[in-house]
Amino acid sequence: MATDTQKPTDAPAENIAVATVRTVEMEGARTRTEHDLLGYGEVPVGAYWGIHTKRAVANFPITGVPVGHFPEFVKSLALVKQAAARANRRLGYLSADKADAIDRACTLVATEPRFAESFVVDAIQGGAGTSTNMNANEVIANVALELMGHPLGHYAALHPNDDVNMAQSTNDAYPTALRLAVMFATQPLIKALDDLAYAFKGKAVEFADVLKMGRTQLMDAVPMTLGQEFDGFHATMKEDVARLNEIVGLFREVNLGATAIGTGINADPRYASLAVEELSRISGHPMVLASNLIEATSDLGAFVLFSGVLKRVAVKLSKICNDLRLLSSGPRTGFGEIRLPAVQAGSSIMPGKVNPVIPEVVNQVAFLVIGHDLTVTLCAEGGQLQLNAFEPTIGYCVLSSLRMLTAAVDTLTKRCIEGIEADRERCRSLVHGSIGLVTALVPALGYEACSRVAQRALAENRPVADIVLEEGLLTETQLDHLLELEAMTLPSRVRRNNPGA
Amino acid sequence: MATDTQKPTDAPAENIAVATVRTVEMEGARTRTEHDLLGYGEVPVGAYWGIHTKRAVANFPITGVPVGHFPEFVKSLALVKQAAARANRRLGYLSADKADAIDRACTLVATEPRFAESFVVDAIQGGAGTSTNMNANEVIANVALELMGHPLGHYAALHPNDDVNMAQSTNDAYPTALRLAVMFATQPLIKALDDLAYAFKGKAVEFADVLKMGRTQLMDAVPMTLGQEFDGFHATMKEDVARLNEIVGLFREVNLGATAIGTGINADPRYASLAVEELSRISGHPMVLASNLIEATSDLGAFVLFSGVLKRVAVKLSKICNDLRLLSSGPRTGFGEIRLPAVQAGSSIMPGKVNPVIPEVVNQVAFLVIGHDLTVTLCAEGGQLQLNAFEPTIGYCVLSSLRMLTAAVDTLTKRCIEGIEADRERCRSLVHGSIGLVTALVPALGYEACSRVAQRALAENRPVADIVLEEGLLTETQLDHLLELEAMTLPSRVRRNNPGA
Amino acid sequence: MATDTQKPTDAPAENIAVATVRTVEMEGARTRTEHDLLGYGEVPVGAYWGIHTKRAVANFPITGVPVGHFPEFVKSLALVKQAAARANRRLGYLSADKADAIDRACTLVATEPRFAESFVVDAIQGGAGTSTNMNANEVIANVALELMGHPLGHYAALHPNDDVNMAQSTNDAYPTALRLAVMFATQPLIKALDDLAYAFKGKAVEFADVLKMGRTQLMDAVPMTLGQEFDGFHATMKEDVARLNEIVGLFREVNLGATAIGTGINADPRYASLAVEELSRISGHPMVLASNLIEATSDLGAFVLFSGVLKRVAVKLSKICNDLRLLSSGPRTGFGEIRLPAVQAGSSIMPGKVNPVIPEVVNQVAFLVIGHDLTVTLCAEGGQLQLNAFEPTIGYCVLSSLRMLTAAVDTLTKRCIEGIEADRERCRSLVHGSIGLVTALVPALGYEACSRVAQRALAENRPVADIVLEEGLLTETQLDHLLELEAMTLPSRVRRNNPGA
Amino acid sequence: MATDTQKPTDAPAENIAVATVRTVEMEGARTRTEHDLLGYGEVPVGAYWGIHTKRAVANFPITGVPVGHFPEFVKSLALVKQAAARANRRLGYLSADKADAIDRACTLVATEPRFAESFVVDAIQGGAGTSTNMNANEVIANVALELMGHPLGHYAALHPNDDVNMAQSTNDAYPTALRLAVMFATQPLIKALDDLAYAFKGKAVEFADVLKMGRTQLMDAVPMTLGQEFDGFHATMKEDVARLNEIVGLFREVNLGATAIGTGINADPRYASLAVEELSRISGHPMVLASNLIEATSDLGAFVLFSGVLKRVAVKLSKICNDLRLLSSGPRTGFGEIRLPAVQAGSSIMPGKVNPVIPEVVNQVAFLVIGHDLTVTLCAEGGQLQLNAFEPTIGYCVLSSLRMLTAAVDTLTKRCIEGIEADRERCRSLVHGSIGLVTALVPALGYEACSRVAQRALAENRPVADIVLEEGLLTETQLDHLLELEAMTLPSRVRRNNPGA
Repeated sequence: MATDTQKPTDAPAENIAVATVRTVEMEGARTRTEHDLLGYGEVPVGAYWGIHTKRAVANFPITGVPVGHFPEFVKSLALVKQAAARANRRLGYLSADKADAIDRACTLVATEPRFAESFVVDAIQGGAGTSTNMNANEVIANVALELMGHPLGHYAALHPNDDVNMAQSTNDAYPTALRLAVMFATQPLIKALDDLAYAFKGKAVEFADVLKMGRTQLMDAVPMTLGQEFDGFHATMKEDVARLNEIVGLFREVNLGATAIGTGINADPRYASLAVEELSRISGHPMVLASNLIEATSDLGAFVLFSGVLKRVAVKLSKICNDLRLLSSGPRTGFGEIRLPAVQAGSSIMPGKVNPVIPEVVNQVAFLVIGHDLTVTLCAEGGQLQLNAFEPTIGYCVLSSLRMLTAAVDTLTKRCIEGIEADRERCRSLVHGSIGLVTALVPALGYEACSRVAQRALAENRPVADIVLEEGLLTETQLDHLLELEAMTLPSRVRRNNPGA
Repeated sequence: MATDTQKPTDAPAENIAVATVRTVEMEGARTRTEHDLLGYGEVPVGAYWGIHTKRAVANFPITGVPVGHFPEFVKSLALVKQAAARANRRLGYLSADKADAIDRACTLVATEPRFAESFVVDAIQGGAGTSTNMNANEVIANVALELMGHPLGHYAALHPNDDVNMAQSTNDAYPTALRLAVMFATQPLIKALDDLAYAFKGKAVEFADVLKMGRTQLMDAVPMTLGQEFDGFHATMKEDVARLNEIVGLFREVNLGATAIGTGINADPRYASLAVEELSRISGHPMVLASNLIEATSDLGAFVLFSGVLKRVAVKLSKICNDLRLLSSGPRTGFGEIRLPAVQAGSSIMPGKVNPVIPEVVNQVAFLVIGHDLTVTLCAEGGQLQLNAFEPTIGYCVLSSLRMLTAAVDTLTKRCIEGIEADRERCRSLVHGSIGLVTALVPALGYEACSRVAQRALAENRPVADIVLEEGLLTETQLDHLLELEAMTLPSRVRRNNPGA
Repeated sequence: MATDTQKPTDAPAENIAVATVRTVEMEGARTRTEHDLLGYGEVPVGAYWGIHTKRAVANFPITGVPVGHFPEFVKSLALVKQAAARANRRLGYLSADKADAIDRACTLVATEPRFAESFVVDAIQGGAGTSTNMNANEVIANVALELMGHPLGHYAALHPNDDVNMAQSTNDAYPTALRLAVMFATQPLIKALDDLAYAFKGKAVEFADVLKMGRTQLMDAVPMTLGQEFDGFHATMKEDVARLNEIVGLFREVNLGATAIGTGINADPRYASLAVEELSRISGHPMVLASNLIEATSDLGAFVLFSGVLKRVAVKLSKICNDLRLLSSGPRTGFGEIRLPAVQAGSSIMPGKVNPVIPEVVNQVAFLVIGHDLTVTLCAEGGQLQLNAFEPTIGYCVLSSLRMLTAAVDTLTKRCIEGIEADRERCRSLVHGSIGLVTALVPALGYEACSRVAQRALAENRPVADIVLEEGLLTETQLDHLLELEAMTLPSRVRRNNPGA
Repeated sequence: MATDTQKPTDAPAENIAVATVRTVEMEGARTRTEHDLLGYGEVPVGAYWGIHTKRAVANFPITGVPVGHFPEFVKSLALVKQAAARANRRLGYLSADKADAIDRACTLVATEPRFAESFVVDAIQGGAGTSTNMNANEVIANVALELMGHPLGHYAALHPNDDVNMAQSTNDAYPTALRLAVMFATQPLIKALDDLAYAFKGKAVEFADVLKMGRTQLMDAVPMTLGQEFDGFHATMKEDVARLNEIVGLFREVNLGATAIGTGINADPRYASLAVEELSRISGHPMVLASNLIEATSDLGAFVLFSGVLKRVAVKLSKICNDLRLLSSGPRTGFGEIRLPAVQAGSSIMPGKVNPVIPEVVNQVAFLVIGHDLTVTLCAEGGQLQLNAFEPTIGYCVLSSLRMLTAAVDTLTKRCIEGIEADRERCRSLVHGSIGLVTALVPALGYEACSRVAQRALAENRPVADIVLEEGLLTETQLDHLLELEAMTLPSRVRRNNPGA
């Protein structure tokens, strides 16, 4: 190894986050007592969450992924509670000191990452999100109590349900927060897709003069440029950015104020529009109140459609990655038209092997997103009467898909697309040897004659041009004109004569 | 039976179509000879289709459902060929007599149902639609030859590929026709959904004063009216009509003129926009040329998204039908709030049983549509490089889903929704006995006290009001005011006092 | 064309079935009157089906595909009715003359294809199959009446429900028939898969000496033979045949005699086992009575699992077809290791293009089967309490998948696999130029040294062997020994020395 | 609260694990330098993992769920490496001291949970599992080096690839470990399902005398006992245990020794069977070597089928949970036949509401499992040529599904099923009022007469018995005999006379 001439890799201090799962035991030295419908129970004395949360943690030990895993969702829950508190204060139902404490607590929870650790309920839960809503009520109540100088759990001073949850039901607060969370989490994906499109455009320009064969059904078709191919990737990503931007807008419509089933029971009639107005101000998104709150409370159509758009993004990314893997296949026994950057050793047994690992991981993320879309569909279909009890899983799937897609697109852009190189020589030589050139002669010779020429070329393993000249079908000048390769890829050039017309 | 007092059912002459599958043998007395790349072959002397079609029929004996099963698709294929012919004529590539014959043939094929029988290729086929395109070229060529006074198969006078298919490839003509077909086939679905929404609105008005319990997670929640419930169905269907109208518009963008892979090889540069212009005039839809033809030729994103919208429609219909089945469950041991019209005997063993067969069939259509959406996804993901070879199956799934959904929605409207009756007495009695009324007391008594009251009411099997009065929590007058049932379902009423505020 | 030297294609008289859809109008000159729960109605005087069928046809105009489209299902329905009639006769509940007429009618319906036309109810229907069962009862009753010399519809002499359906419910007769139908329809698929495996084995032998590069992740890996590759296809298909044979056996368990919900109401306690015994004799399959009839009546687990096996078959077929398309890609700019037989012209614009249309159609069938599997899953999950109302769609999906898969596998075997040729020269030259050979040197040189050699070979565009010799890592003799190409593909040869051990 | 009379909940010290996600920063004070194909890089001086792992962590920041999240997989990787080392030692390729160190290291990694933290690569990764395999090689090599007294990273003494990975490729070691991991992880699920079945059987016995109405298509059908209903749940779960046990056996077949593509390159011909033999001894599972290693290396059929079985389990669980939610719906406006134990407060707005949160979470897990099954299908279909690059995602989905299902089934058994109570009085009263009793009269009165009786009973809102007596169809004695309620649910009783026979 002393003879190794490679220079050390740059960036020796690069910082890499390694995820792991830690288990926090609730059982500890000191606890406080809380009670609920079922009786009394102990919670750790310093926990912001309370007995409802504790019950839920015990009931749903499903995935080990807590709600706090989704920071946009924690933030959104806090903003919804803040908007409600402001509305309730303005309507005179919540005293100034309580409202103020809740308000400040919500700001803290929404902005300081440390509070995510208090959202300990499993992301997959029964109860239509009640446990998440209770978890939020309890955390915000206790943070507010702390701000007010009270001990945690002293709910006589400020109550999770009567005060923090005032005029709300899980059935309106939870979906409103979830919709806002999806809006927040979509922005990074849109940015990532836009960056990817930008990278494709860069390659489109770089490869604008690389002539290559186009292929349909994996068979040699007609010539194009590699730049055109990458420009197609650019165009298709841009379209998806447009669709995402359109359809994420459906989430602006919320049912805040619907309370339990959309009839607005226990909420002042002025409350709904006021709360939505506050939420718009706080969140920076122009939220609107659904026109039919009964419908809005049970309907998850926006999630189904949005998940469908994510699936569309996934399908396109997967198709592009399949193409990249095909075009870079080889290095010597495949298509070999492009080279992807090497980002790690490819094999534990085959030395020197470099694999398209980045496109491969994007394919897999696409498959996960498609699976999540199915789960979203199943959840949406399973709703019954005035509520859909399966919203937590819809939230989990959509937020997970957004997170994975964003990460996958980023790694694709930076660790793959930006470093792609073309093998110009191989691209050109493949074009010159192909049969597909014969298509350019159809306007001059007709479909049937060209079919015969193609068959002869293939059977005799000879170039198309040879056969045409040998058969005297065209002069060399005519042929050169028709087979001007670059011309074939540019529809704006003068059309070849059509002698048969 | 002589004693049977039922009067005969009206409408004795009602006409019912019974579908069946007929097998037509190609082998017959007289044939004509055609040839292709593979050699010579016989086709029935009177067949409008030719040897390419024959090969395809032999290669793809998959479903027994021919392309002609989808009349909108046959029509669209003819319109695309017509637009191409008109463009080619205006550009001077196609002589007036040929163009005229093709034009008239296309009109015939597009408008006379009998020609659907000549589109005999199986809807599921390899070759990216080439066989369907060839089938169309051959049928139109032969119809044109007939109009010109030539015998069928006399392609020297007018050629399926050189003339009918001029300046086209399967890869642009086929997807353009498919997109147009989906646009045509979506109109009846939109109409059907609109009629369904109208029927729901009618019931919403009819049931506006039927008080009933709302249910969340299948458990008694708070009161609402049956009219509100049906108005929710109305609202959700209207939203889907809006989404369908928006997203079907994506199909207006076509790649006609892209030819083989989007470079426009063998097409005059003026051809693409001219052909699209003609197609717009002929079809009555404002079609536009895709801005990136390379991308447009391989991308099926519009189908993925549109199929996602159909899935959304399916999910909503299924949820509504599940609700209808729940609400009508019984007649004596279920919810029994509504009665669906009886449309057939329900059981071969249980006399008098009437089942919710119409909602059930809608559920099943929904499940088929969701399955088709998956198939569309798989097909779209499987596209490679410059083309997606699996477009025929995408077309089959989307067109089948449209057809089934339209039929299912129509039968749902006419044979179920319009005849639904409410059991007003049962609805009201269920409300009066429910625990859920306690929610209306929360603003007055607080969450915790109300929890205790609810638990007592359930444990002692007594009404909520009894407990409240017995415990002296409210006076009878206060209670009556808070429990004014109809008021609870109308958020615009004056809010109950909140003594705790 | 006079100069065309191709000789006419053989088999000019080949007979090809072209499917179409015919619509039969019920409305006609003469009708007879029948009545049911809903009142009276007219049916065509000559129809074997009656009023229940007529109601269902009107209620479910969904797909246009009638139950009669699935001949195995019609046959199975008749056999179940026959078994029931024999059991009822032996128990003394059905008189000899009625039993005899039903028995003969069932034989006719089961064996004569013409009766399929009388099963006119749409395959997709509400009512858990009641309409199909009623359709069968009516057809068999009327055929029996005809045999007895009575006019059609003279149910006083022999009644569809009281006699043909005696001791049965839709809820046991229908699923029993469906299970039997799946067993019947699986046999041709097993045969087709076995034939396909046989064809792969033939190619494995034919290509046993064709050396080629193996590829992992589409990148050059290590050498193998083309015969080994096809033998892998053979092995994987054989496994599926084994799985299908195992899992189709789950359908032997039926709930005949369960009647309405599994309690056996209205059936003699001796009836169930007797009817199943009769069904075994008649069908030739060793059917068994489910041990828990309540469970068996609502459970569709066997369909879910069987559909999963069909999905597995589909996945494997699709993967193989993807491989075939990759290996045959070209002819000049792809992998080009094999040539698929040309079965039709590939393009309407690109002359001489031949596409892998047969593998493509198999891919699409696979995608449809996967979609159907999802629909089956949705239907199974949607079952409620004592019955699953969505069994008709499960039947439709499974029977359709079986039909499509059988057709697709047959066309794959006969029109593709049997005609595949290897391009031996290209296969060998790709191996010789590859970098992957370096793997064979790892036991001698170690992983790290080989990585360096591979990188140099790629960077300098030279053969691996050159670098090794130039660097003096091995002698030419050692190298030749290690790179004995054929040896690398045969694990049974003597192992190369491992100097590092 | 002073007046609160509820006694404190028992088990105040109950210990509850709260999951969270911790991020460990790689960047630290001290590092060591390693190198690979791409150059040099730093890793934390105390990390068991090395540079290959570091690259992968940087390349795949996808889900935040590391391989170490699946302890069965970590264990299985160690056992495979151990088996390989033992085989290599017996064949003389690995020295005793190296083999011994690796052996001891593998035992530590397989048995001590702390090593899971060193498997830091994201579970979703490109490269067909190479990064996981490299991660395992590095960890085991460094643990072994530590045991040998060498510093971490001193690979000259014992090399991750040359020694730990000797005679292996990712392409055989990884899938072998994954199969073993699935076998390990299936045992707890089988145990959990068996416990669930046991709990259902307990309820079947407890409710054996609770008469209730059976329902088909949600409509009143015929009587049964609640015990029969729960016994059906027991039977269906037992079947799934049987299917799981059968099909998990498919994983016993492994391709260890196949190396890169199944040709066994670089492995002694005696190695494969020897390594599998060692693995069988170590793991306690009777593993067998696949008969066709080429096929076994690329095929993932066993995962597709096994995932299909998990889907079947999910479908059944979901159906059962749907039933439980229906049967417990109410408490006053639903079916109300059973009561589920209350495990948490049900609503943040509706006091006293208790929801079926445990069945709801099981439904959602089922939907996630069905989504995972789709992802598995997509991954399996995406395999190409000699390898499937998407195996990591298959592993992730199957192992995640197993974990979630096990947790969900356990919570269902303990927190729901075991505490279910019947409302005997309500069950009985629903039966007595039902129309469905009329079915029991069919053998005596015939289908048509009974239909008329049922219609009258419904229209006049009277009991069936009244109508029958009033019409003089039966004497009271006959009627009592036929309507002996319990008898109707027991098929073994004497059959009622059939006067029509």
